[in-house]
Amino acid sequence: MSSMRTLLHPACADLSLPTILYALGDPLRLRMVGQLAAVDEAISCGDIHVVKEVPKSTGSHHFKVLREAGLIRMVPQGRRVLVSLRRADLEERFPGLLDAILHTYDRQ
Amino acid sequence: MSSMRTLLHPACADLSLPTILYALGDPLRLRMVGQLAAVDEAISCGDIHVVKEVPKSTGSHHFKVLREAGLIRMVPQGRRVLVSLRRADLEERFPGLLDAILHTYDRQ
Repeated sequence: MSSMRTLLHPACADLSLPTILYALGDPLRLRMVGQLAAVDEAISCGDIHVVKEVPKSTGSHHFKVLREAGLIRMVPQGRRVLVSLRRADLEERFPGLLDAILHTYDRQ
Repeated sequence: MSSMRTLLHPACADLSLPTILYALGDPLRLRMVGQLAAVDEAISCGDIHVVKEVPKSTGSHHFKVLREAGLIRMVPQGRRVLVSLRRADLEERFPGLLDAILHTYDRQ
């Protein structure tokens, strides 16, 4: 398909701790990841609540930061882009880290 | 003492998760915190290894980000500034979080 966008994702082995922490170090991105962790499945980018509250370009930027850090996977499907948390990859690379952060996020 | 600098530190209750993650989301700052966690006592700012590798203004900036996020305490003592990790405050505000991040940092 010529219209297929190529969205790059870092390999599991290339995930970097400071890059992951930086990506989560923004209130809006943290809420995006919090929602994805709660639904625990791939959903349409447009269904991420906080993204609806900001300009489209801002949302795109935050998706890009999270994707390039390796926190989320984005898969184009027709006119939508499905997004999911890379929970297994993160657990493999940094065991316990994401759970500790999400646990803290949920308790806030 | 008129020469006493006032260094502001956020109260424990005011520590913010995204702000903490942002402060740790930089390779140099993560190494600063890693060293402070390893020594587990107050040391002179000038004894932080990575700070010796960068311009003084860069080091000052990173100390400021860590201090304002509530990760470190900086106490002027004569011509030195003693710096320490606010481990107890962080543990009280976000139980388990710092340990999980430091554990991941040590395993990298």
